[in-house]
Amino acid sequence: MVPRYSRPAMTAIWTAENRFRIWWDIEVFAAEAMGEIGMIPQEDAARILAARDRIEPIDVPAIDAIEAVTKHDVIAFLTWAGDKLGDERRWLHQGMTSSDVLDTALNVQLTQAADILIEDLKQLLAVLERRAFEHKLTPTIGRSHGIHAEPVTFGLKLAQAHAEFARNLKRLEAAREEIATCAISGAVGTFANIDPRVEEHVARRLGLTPEPTSTQVIPRDRHAMFFAVLGVIASSIERLATEVRHLQRTEVLEAEEYFSPGQKGSSAMPHKRNPVLTENLTGLSRVVRSAVLPAMENVALWHERDISHSSVERFIGPDATITLDFALARLTGVIDKLLIYPERMQKNLDRMGGLVHSQRVLLALTQAGLSREDAYAKVQRNAMMVWESDGALSLLDLLKADPEVTAVLPPEKLEESFDLGYHFRQVDTIFERVFGPSA
Amino acid sequence: MVPRYSRPAMTAIWTAENRFRIWWDIEVFAAEAMGEIGMIPQEDAARILAARDRIEPIDVPAIDAIEAVTKHDVIAFLTWAGDKLGDERRWLHQGMTSSDVLDTALNVQLTQAADILIEDLKQLLAVLERRAFEHKLTPTIGRSHGIHAEPVTFGLKLAQAHAEFARNLKRLEAAREEIATCAISGAVGTFANIDPRVEEHVARRLGLTPEPTSTQVIPRDRHAMFFAVLGVIASSIERLATEVRHLQRTEVLEAEEYFSPGQKGSSAMPHKRNPVLTENLTGLSRVVRSAVLPAMENVALWHERDISHSSVERFIGPDATITLDFALARLTGVIDKLLIYPERMQKNLDRMGGLVHSQRVLLALTQAGLSREDAYAKVQRNAMMVWESDGALSLLDLLKADPEVTAVLPPEKLEESFDLGYHFRQVDTIFERVFGPSA
Amino acid sequence: MVPRYSRPAMTAIWTAENRFRIWWDIEVFAAEAMGEIGMIPQEDAARILAARDRIEPIDVPAIDAIEAVTKHDVIAFLTWAGDKLGDERRWLHQGMTSSDVLDTALNVQLTQAADILIEDLKQLLAVLERRAFEHKLTPTIGRSHGIHAEPVTFGLKLAQAHAEFARNLKRLEAAREEIATCAISGAVGTFANIDPRVEEHVARRLGLTPEPTSTQVIPRDRHAMFFAVLGVIASSIERLATEVRHLQRTEVLEAEEYFSPGQKGSSAMPHKRNPVLTENLTGLSRVVRSAVLPAMENVALWHERDISHSSVERFIGPDATITLDFALARLTGVIDKLLIYPERMQKNLDRMGGLVHSQRVLLALTQAGLSREDAYAKVQRNAMMVWESDGALSLLDLLKADPEVTAVLPPEKLEESFDLGYHFRQVDTIFERVFGPSA
Amino acid sequence: MVPRYSRPAMTAIWTAENRFRIWWDIEVFAAEAMGEIGMIPQEDAARILAARDRIEPIDVPAIDAIEAVTKHDVIAFLTWAGDKLGDERRWLHQGMTSSDVLDTALNVQLTQAADILIEDLKQLLAVLERRAFEHKLTPTIGRSHGIHAEPVTFGLKLAQAHAEFARNLKRLEAAREEIATCAISGAVGTFANIDPRVEEHVARRLGLTPEPTSTQVIPRDRHAMFFAVLGVIASSIERLATEVRHLQRTEVLEAEEYFSPGQKGSSAMPHKRNPVLTENLTGLSRVVRSAVLPAMENVALWHERDISHSSVERFIGPDATITLDFALARLTGVIDKLLIYPERMQKNLDRMGGLVHSQRVLLALTQAGLSREDAYAKVQRNAMMVWESDGALSLLDLLKADPEVTAVLPPEKLEESFDLGYHFRQVDTIFERVFGPSA
Repeated sequence: MVPRYSRPAMTAIWTAENRFRIWWDIEVFAAEAMGEIGMIPQEDAARILAARDRIEPIDVPAIDAIEAVTKHDVIAFLTWAGDKLGDERRWLHQGMTSSDVLDTALNVQLTQAADILIEDLKQLLAVLERRAFEHKLTPTIGRSHGIHAEPVTFGLKLAQAHAEFARNLKRLEAAREEIATCAISGAVGTFANIDPRVEEHVARRLGLTPEPTSTQVIPRDRHAMFFAVLGVIASSIERLATEVRHLQRTEVLEAEEYFSPGQKGSSAMPHKRNPVLTENLTGLSRVVRSAVLPAMENVALWHERDISHSSVERFIGPDATITLDFALARLTGVIDKLLIYPERMQKNLDRMGGLVHSQRVLLALTQAGLSREDAYAKVQRNAMMVWESDGALSLLDLLKADPEVTAVLPPEKLEESFDLGYHFRQVDTIFERVFGPSA
Repeated sequence: MVPRYSRPAMTAIWTAENRFRIWWDIEVFAAEAMGEIGMIPQEDAARILAARDRIEPIDVPAIDAIEAVTKHDVIAFLTWAGDKLGDERRWLHQGMTSSDVLDTALNVQLTQAADILIEDLKQLLAVLERRAFEHKLTPTIGRSHGIHAEPVTFGLKLAQAHAEFARNLKRLEAAREEIATCAISGAVGTFANIDPRVEEHVARRLGLTPEPTSTQVIPRDRHAMFFAVLGVIASSIERLATEVRHLQRTEVLEAEEYFSPGQKGSSAMPHKRNPVLTENLTGLSRVVRSAVLPAMENVALWHERDISHSSVERFIGPDATITLDFALARLTGVIDKLLIYPERMQKNLDRMGGLVHSQRVLLALTQAGLSREDAYAKVQRNAMMVWESDGALSLLDLLKADPEVTAVLPPEKLEESFDLGYHFRQVDTIFERVFGPSA
Repeated sequence: MVPRYSRPAMTAIWTAENRFRIWWDIEVFAAEAMGEIGMIPQEDAARILAARDRIEPIDVPAIDAIEAVTKHDVIAFLTWAGDKLGDERRWLHQGMTSSDVLDTALNVQLTQAADILIEDLKQLLAVLERRAFEHKLTPTIGRSHGIHAEPVTFGLKLAQAHAEFARNLKRLEAAREEIATCAISGAVGTFANIDPRVEEHVARRLGLTPEPTSTQVIPRDRHAMFFAVLGVIASSIERLATEVRHLQRTEVLEAEEYFSPGQKGSSAMPHKRNPVLTENLTGLSRVVRSAVLPAMENVALWHERDISHSSVERFIGPDATITLDFALARLTGVIDKLLIYPERMQKNLDRMGGLVHSQRVLLALTQAGLSREDAYAKVQRNAMMVWESDGALSLLDLLKADPEVTAVLPPEKLEESFDLGYHFRQVDTIFERVFGPSA
Repeated sequence: MVPRYSRPAMTAIWTAENRFRIWWDIEVFAAEAMGEIGMIPQEDAARILAARDRIEPIDVPAIDAIEAVTKHDVIAFLTWAGDKLGDERRWLHQGMTSSDVLDTALNVQLTQAADILIEDLKQLLAVLERRAFEHKLTPTIGRSHGIHAEPVTFGLKLAQAHAEFARNLKRLEAAREEIATCAISGAVGTFANIDPRVEEHVARRLGLTPEPTSTQVIPRDRHAMFFAVLGVIASSIERLATEVRHLQRTEVLEAEEYFSPGQKGSSAMPHKRNPVLTENLTGLSRVVRSAVLPAMENVALWHERDISHSSVERFIGPDATITLDFALARLTGVIDKLLIYPERMQKNLDRMGGLVHSQRVLLALTQAGLSREDAYAKVQRNAMMVWESDGALSLLDLLKADPEVTAVLPPEKLEESFDLGYHFRQVDTIFERVFGPSA
C-alpha cells in the first residue's frame, strides 16, 4: 500500500483493528450458534454474545505483544480478547481451527472492499452518464489507428466507457458474491469437532454463504477470480485514461484534465498542463493487474492446504483493492471535471478539409449513376489536392468546382454528403442501448 | 498451437475454413436483413441467402492468393466468395467495415470454443462425481503443509475438486455469455451507413447478442474477462494435477495415473511409473495462464481502435482454448482411470502410530475432567514416544498402558477416540452440499 | 507460432529436422568421446563419426511412426538413426539419459535462435545509426506527458533508441552465453554411467560450455533468464513502435511508416495511412513478454526433475524467438524506410508561437538583472496572450513590442533566446557517447 | 511493503530520509561541479558543499508540509533544504529538471538495494557451501517425477543450489551495473541549460556511470532488466524452498526446518512440524515475480517521457527489493539450520528393496555376456517380486537366490552392482566444478 494512492475507507478495512473486529465477530457468532445447538451452555453463549462490543477499543499493541511470545496470531488475539470475558471464555474457538477465523475474515474484508469498489463504479457510471448526455451531440473526429476516420460524438465516447464500466460492475458483483463465503469446518474441513450448523449460523450473521466444502482453507480459485476481475477493471481504467491522455496532447487538445485557476497562473508555459492524473492511472492499472497471476498461482495449494498463499495475500489483498479504489475515484474526478473543448474538436474535424466525408461522396456519386471506378477516380483526384494542401483547401469547394462531379451531383446534393448530422442519426439508439429507454 | 496438445474439434474452430465459413454467414445474414428492411432489393437478398452453402468447399489457397495481391483479408474473401453469386454480389458488405466481420467472427469462434470447454467441464464433473462416490468413505490422511493432520476420505478430496470445477463451469458460462456479441456498426460504430437492425438480425441468426456500442471494434474488456476465466480454470487444473503428483510419489503412493499392463511390463524398474500426465498438466496450466495479461493489455486500444490486439489474439485465441480443451480432457482421463490404493492410504494413516488422534484424546481427557494442562502433559509424553519410535509404537497401546490415563479414561473409552468414523460423520452433509440432496 | 509473424531461418531452427539433426550430432560426438577415452572401441566410434552426415535427409514421418509405437521420442529417433549404422549402433547413447540429448539440444536451438536475434539487433542498430546521423540536427519538439516541452532533434530520438538496443544486444549476448551449456550426466546428474569427459567433448564440439552440475535436466534458471531478456527487448520494441505511432497521428504527422506509391493511390482517403506495422509490433511485444512468467514458473522443478517445464517450452521456445525475430526485422524495416517530415516537425515546433522558449527568456531576463518574480510576471503575461491566440501570435513579437521587456533585453538579445541552436550544442557530445568518438 | 517480511537495512533505503539525503547529495555535487566549471561562483559552490551534512536530521514532516502547498516534491525539498544555506541557495538546481534528481536518486536507491541483495546472496552461498561439504557424501535417493530414480548425495543437491545462486549473483552484479547510472541532462535530455560535465562529476561522486543519453528520464529498459533479474532469483528461491517442503513431508522426512526445543514441546502432535518458512518463501517468490511485467510495461513511455512509470515504481521498488532481501535471509537461515536426517535418507533409499540398482545389474549381466533381452527378463521377474512385496523383499537377496543369475554373475559380483559408491565417483569432479579446484 502506498499512502498517496489510498483512501481512508478502503485502508480502514485492512487495519489490524478491523481484522480483529471481524475475528471477534466470528468467534462470538460461533459461540452463539454453539449455544443454540447445545454444544455449549446457552447462558455462557449469551454472555459471550453480550460481550460483542466490549472489545472496543482494540488494543493492537497488546495483542502484538502476546503474539511475539506465542508466535500465533489467533491464539494471541483470543488470549487478549478472553480477558473481556469470565469463565465462559473457555468455550471460545471450540472445535475450530485458526483458518476458520482467518479465511472467513479475509473473505469478509474482500467483501467489504468489493462493496466500496461497487460504490466507486456506480459513482463513475453516474459521472460518465451525466457527461455523456452533456456531449451527446458534440461532434468530434473518430480515429482508428490514431488517424482521422469518420465523425462520432464526444458523448458516444463516454457512452462506450459507460457500457464498459457497467459490465465491470456486473463482473464485480458476481466476484463479490463468489468471495462472500464462510468456512468453519475444522482442521481438514470434515467438521470433525464442529457442527456444520455453526458455520451456517456464522455465515448468516456475517451476510456470507457457507463454503460448500473447505479443506482447512477456503479454496483459492475464488480469490483468483476476484483479483482477475480487479485486473479487468484496471484495464478498463487504463483504456479511458489513455483516451484522455491522447485528447490532451498539444496537437490534439480536445480535452484536458481540470486545473484550477491558481494552477493555470503558475507557469510561464501556459500550454504545459500535463495529464498527470491519467498517466498516473495508467501506472496504477499495471499495479492492480500485477495481482492477477500471483492470485492464480495461489490456487494450487498442496493437499488440504499449505500456507504459501498467505504472504501473497498480505500484499495483494490491500494493494489491489486500495489502489483500485483510489484509481476509480481519481478517474471519476477526472471525468467529472474534464475540460472539454468542442471548438477544438470541430477545428480538428475540419482540419483535413473535409476528407472524412470522401467515403460518403463516393457513395453518393455511385448512387447517382457513376461506376464505382469512375466515382473513385473523381473523388481521389480532388482528395489528393486537399491532402497536399495540408488543410488549406476544402474537399467540398473543390468538388463543387469540378464540372465532372457537378454534372452528376449538383452542389446542393454535394453539401448533403458533408452533413455531420448524417453520422449521428443513430446516437439516440445507441444511448438507449447503453442508458436504457428513458435516455 | 502445439499439435500434441490439441484435439480435433477445438482445432477445427481455428482453421481458415471455419473462419471463412463464419464470415460468409455474417455477410449472408446481413444481406438477408438488408433485404428485409429495404436497404437492398429483397430478391437479391434471397439470392444471397440461397447461396449460403454454395461456398463449400472453401478454397483457402485461392483466397490466400487473392490476399497476397490485395493485402486485405476480408476483401480477398469477398472477391472469392462473390464469384458464387451473380450481380447481387454488389450488395455484399454494404455499409459494413471489415471489423464488423472480423470481430463478430472472432466472438463466434470464442463462443464455439466455450461450448466445447463447457462440455469438457461437464465431463470432468461427471467423472469426479462418480469417483467421489466410489471413494466416499475411503479413509485417507488429510495433510496440511504436507504433514499428516487429521483423517479425511478420498471421496472428500474429489468432492472438493468437483465443487471447484462446478464454480469454473459457472464462470465459463458467464464468460461465454459475455463474449457472445455481434457488432455490425460501421467504421467508427455510429451505424452511419448501416441500420442497427442489420446488427440485430445477424446477432439473432448467429445466436449472439448485439454489442450495445462498439467503436469499429468490439471492446476488449470482454475478451480480457474470457481469457481471465480460462486462466482460473487452468489454475484449478494445476491444483488437482499437483494433488495426483503428490499422491503418486514413491513414499506416498496412494494413487497412480493409469498404466496399461503393457506399460507395466516395459521396465526393469517397476516402481518407475511417473506421473507424466499430471506434470504435463502443470505445465499446460502455465501456458493457459500466460494468455491472461496480454488479453488485459489489449483492452486499452487507442481512441476508436488500433490493431495491436489482433496479433495477440492470433496467438492466444487458438493457444489458450486448444490447450485448455486438451488439458481438461487429459485431466478427465487421469481421474477417470486413476488407480486408487485404499490399503496404502490406510497404511500411511497408520504410519504415525495413531498420533493423528492425539487432539481427540486430549479433548476426551478434558471432558472426563482433567485440566487442559494436565491432559496435555499426559498425551504429550506418550505422543513423543510414538514419534521417536518412527511408527513402531502405537499411541493407543501406550495410553492403554498408562495408568494415569486409564484412571480417567478406561481403555474402551480410549478406543472411541481412535475411531475414524468420528471424523466422517459429516461426509453425507458435505456430499449433499456439493452434489445436491439426491446424493 | 503464427506463420504470418515468422521468418524462415528462425522457423527452421524449430523444425523436427533441425532437432533430430542436433540429437544426432550429440550422439555422434558422444560416441567420438567414448572412443577416445576407451569406453567403446575406437574403430566403432570412428564408424559412428563417419556416419554423421549419413542421416540426411531425415525421415520425420518414419521417426514419428516409430514413436507412435514406442511412446518415446529419443528411442524412436535412435531406432531410426541406428539403421544408418552397422553393429556399432549398440554403443549409441551408452550411459546417457534422454534428457542429456533433449536438454542439450534445446540449448543448441536457443543458442542458434540467439545468434539470429543478435544479428537482427545488429541490423536494427545499423539502421538506427544511419537514420540518426541523417537527422542529427533535424529540429523537432520534445514532449513530456504528450505536451510540448523543449526542442530536441529527430536524430537524438533515434540515438536514444540506439543506446537502448545496444544495451539489449549486450543483454542478449550474455543470455546466449548463459544458455549455451551442455549436459551429458546421466539419470540424476551423477555421471554414474558416463564419464564427464564425454560431456566436455560434446560441449566443445557443439560450441557449448559443460553444465557445472545438472540433475538429469539443465537447471531452468538459465532459460528463465533467457526469456526475461527477450521480454525486455520486446518492451524496447514497444517503446519505439509507440513513438512511431504517435508521430503518425493525423494531428502530429511528423513521420509515417513507408507506403509505396501504389499503396498511396489505393484509397479515396489519402490521409488514411495507418501505422499498422508499429501497432502490430505493439501486440507482438505483449506476446513475447507473455513467455517470461511461465519460464520463471518452470524453474522450481521437483527434486532432480519433473517434466512440467517441457510443455511450456514447446510453446514459448518457438513462439518467443520466432515472434521476436519477426518483430525486430519488421522494426528495422519500419525505421529503415520511415518517412520523416522535417517541415511538419518545424511547423509543430512553431505551433505554440514560441512558448517553448519562455523558460530561456526568463533566464535571460534574470541574468539581465530582473528579479525572478518580475521576470516571471513579464514573460507570463505575454505567454498567456500567445496561448490564448492558439498559435496566431508569436511570443518573440510580443516581447519585442513590450517596452518593459526591451528596456532590459533589446530585441537582438531577445532573438538569441529563440535560437534553436542553443538547444543543440551538446548533440555532438551525446552522439559521441552513443556511437563512439568517431561519430 | 509488509512489515513482517522486511528487514531494517533494506527498509531504510526506501525511507523519505534516505531519499532526501540522496537528493541533497545530487544537488550538492552538482553545485560542486558547477563551481569547478565556472557556471556558478566557486566560493558559493564551496559553501554549498560545506553544507552537505548540515541537513541532518532531515525534517520529513516539514518537507511534506511544504509539498502540501507547492504540490511538487523536489521544490518542497529544495525550499526546506535551502534554509540551511545563505544566498548561495539560488544556485541550487540550476539548469536541472526534477527528473534529474528523481531518476538519479532512484538509481542510487536501487544500487544500494542491489548491494544488500548481493551481500545476501554471498551469505546464502557461504551457507550452501558449508552444508554441501558437510553432506558431500551423504547418500540419498535422487528423484525424477517424484519417483525414486538413482542415488545422489545430499551435498550434490546443495551444490546444485549453490551453482544456481552463483549464477544469480553474477546476474545481479550485471543488473546492478546496468542500473547504476546518473542523468543530469535537463528537461528533454539535451543539456540545454546544464553542462554534461556536471552529470559526469555527480556520477563519479555517487559511484555511478553517466547515462549516455536520457530524455528527461533514464530509460526504463534498465529498470525492467533489474526487476527481471529479481524475478529469476525469486524463482530459484522457490525451487530450493520447494525441495525443502518435499523433504519435510511426513512420508519422506529427510530434512526439516529447524525448530527450537521450546517449539518442539509445544504440541501434542510432535509430527506436526510444518515447513512454514519454505511455504512462506514460495509465496514471497510469487510476490517478487509479480514486479517483472509491470516493470516491462513501464518501458514504453510516450515520447521523451510520461509519468506512468512513477506510481508503479513506488510499489515495486520497495516491495520487490525488501521482499527479496527478506526471502534470501530467510532461506539462508533455513539452510543454515536445516535438520538433515541421513538415517532416514538411507531408509528411504532402502525402501524399494534395492530396485534403484536394477539398471546397473542389467548392465552387469549384459557385460557378463547375456543378451540385453535375456538380462532384462531375469532382472524384471525379480524386480516385480520386490515391488509387489512393498519393500519386504530385497532385490539383491532374490538375485543371489536366482541360479540363472548367479550362473552368470556370482554373488560377490552382484553385490558390486549394489554399491552406492559407484554412483558417487564423480562427486569430487562436480564439487570442483561448482566450488573451484580448492574444493
